[in-house]
Amino acid sequence: MKIVALAGGIGGARFLRGLRAAVPEAEITVIGNTGDDISLFGLRVCPDLDTVMYTLGGGIDEEQGWGRAGETFTVKEELGAYGAGPGWFGLGDRDFATHIVRTQMLAAGYKLSAVTEALCDRWKPGVRLIPMTDDQVETHVVIEDERGRRAIHFQEWWVRLRASVPALSIAAVGAEESKPAPGVLEAIEGADVVLFPPSNPVVSIGTILAVPGIRDAIAAKTVVGVSPIIGGAPVRGMADACLTAIGVETSARAVAELYGLGLLDGWLVDEADADVRVEGIEVRPRPLLMSDPDATAAIARAAVDLAVELKRAEEAR
Amino acid sequence: MKIVALAGGIGGARFLRGLRAAVPEAEITVIGNTGDDISLFGLRVCPDLDTVMYTLGGGIDEEQGWGRAGETFTVKEELGAYGAGPGWFGLGDRDFATHIVRTQMLAAGYKLSAVTEALCDRWKPGVRLIPMTDDQVETHVVIEDERGRRAIHFQEWWVRLRASVPALSIAAVGAEESKPAPGVLEAIEGADVVLFPPSNPVVSIGTILAVPGIRDAIAAKTVVGVSPIIGGAPVRGMADACLTAIGVETSARAVAELYGLGLLDGWLVDEADADVRVEGIEVRPRPLLMSDPDATAAIARAAVDLAVELKRAEEAR
Repeated sequence: MKIVALAGGIGGARFLRGLRAAVPEAEITVIGNTGDDISLFGLRVCPDLDTVMYTLGGGIDEEQGWGRAGETFTVKEELGAYGAGPGWFGLGDRDFATHIVRTQMLAAGYKLSAVTEALCDRWKPGVRLIPMTDDQVETHVVIEDERGRRAIHFQEWWVRLRASVPALSIAAVGAEESKPAPGVLEAIEGADVVLFPPSNPVVSIGTILAVPGIRDAIAAKTVVGVSPIIGGAPVRGMADACLTAIGVETSARAVAELYGLGLLDGWLVDEADADVRVEGIEVRPRPLLMSDPDATAAIARAAVDLAVELKRAEEAR
Repeated sequence: MKIVALAGGIGGARFLRGLRAAVPEAEITVIGNTGDDISLFGLRVCPDLDTVMYTLGGGIDEEQGWGRAGETFTVKEELGAYGAGPGWFGLGDRDFATHIVRTQMLAAGYKLSAVTEALCDRWKPGVRLIPMTDDQVETHVVIEDERGRRAIHFQEWWVRLRASVPALSIAAVGAEESKPAPGVLEAIEGADVVLFPPSNPVVSIGTILAVPGIRDAIAAKTVVGVSPIIGGAPVRGMADACLTAIGVETSARAVAELYGLGLLDGWLVDEADADVRVEGIEVRPRPLLMSDPDATAAIARAAVDLAVELKRAEEAR
């Protein structure tokens, strides 16, 4: 079976690890969000791609969910001693090496997709990881504070401000002119099913879908999503702040409607949301807390099973 | 008193520390060699400038003579895990931060001289440190091995091969087209005396003198050098291999003659070389082993004293 999954950071990466365990025979292609990529200290940092790579490659800081296990922060401290900022982004020494290799390859002319493949040569994540695009797409957030109304990089809002200042709007700058990275559309077209892990529906899945061509290619497939919202609150992270910014209620139903009838075929919600109904979408309640690897694999298995069921039903029609 | 000193790496840096201690009231400008600068992992590394900066700023690994004290090598190990090379150049985590800041500033359009000044804002070396040029000058070494005759970067010959393969020739590529960095000629012109520390006469002092304009400016001054050769052998490093490459004997006399009558006014040699005479150059024997800070300061003091004596004699004529 060929599966394509879109993925943001921590939630997506953990779901993917469960998916790999649940369907070890499947050929899994992961299309990673690059909208929250950022250049820091002249180095290109791809937080979501790295979280997926480290998580599936066994190098992740399990407790934190991002960054490397056993990390040290000598370089960051030294940069601070030079007065070089920002200090609010937690780059560790091990992690720095990834960004140094990436930046060197990008400067040498390699595309981000080729660089990601090269980095994965080391990590062997057991999936094919492709960035959504090789073009630069940057998620910006419009906020209003004592300095007035202004757009800041998503990471500044997310990491430095911890989404504490309301986002007036969120935009994936550059998305309209971007092209899917080589292999993205081919993987979707060749997929048996497409899965949306419980990643942020606005700044992760939403950004990937904003790359022209990806949404249409996915719409032609059997798509099952896993709700990132349980009982009116995000399972983790601050998806509620992102949903509010785009005028969408923080609920499992509203997120399914956001993805839309034309895109989503099945929707796994938590038992807390067992009463959710969405016209035209098959909603299935089950425990959705990814509390440990087994529970996560069971959720992934359920998503695959629902997708296969819906695909067969569609084919039988 | 205003002093200008040319400097390579370890020997030059230690001499400068002695000089600063010997004449604390002096205004010292150091013109640093950049010929052995190298780009590694996409980062710009300036070994000689950093050795001077770390040594005078109190951050040097005292035993090793280069790199940072208390250094760790996490980034380097991780780069190795990605298969990124070279592994033969010892970049530590603390040191990496310097190269990251430098590279980011260079990419932003700052010249190396401005970058060096910014880095020194942290280290406060107590001297003004200026790179010899803001232009790219790279010392290349022609060798002949099983792969045939070829030119390699100085660092590859020096660090990887430890100068074990004979250098057929040594060239400062780009030197002819380079210009002295802002402040270099002004500092020389305004100097009371110019000192040549016991740095490598070929690839350190020689390279600085190869930048058009610097040699002539220095020739107009009272110049005293400290021999890097004691009793026919370099005090440290592999200056003999460099001298052999350019057809010069490894002796205190030959190095003085290499600098030349028009340039050098005084020459401190070790007591082992007390019989050295060079036509037109005032040669003074004294202990030259920089065995500890006090001994080093005494050598620096002797160099300054000789320079002042020669300058007064010149003025009296």
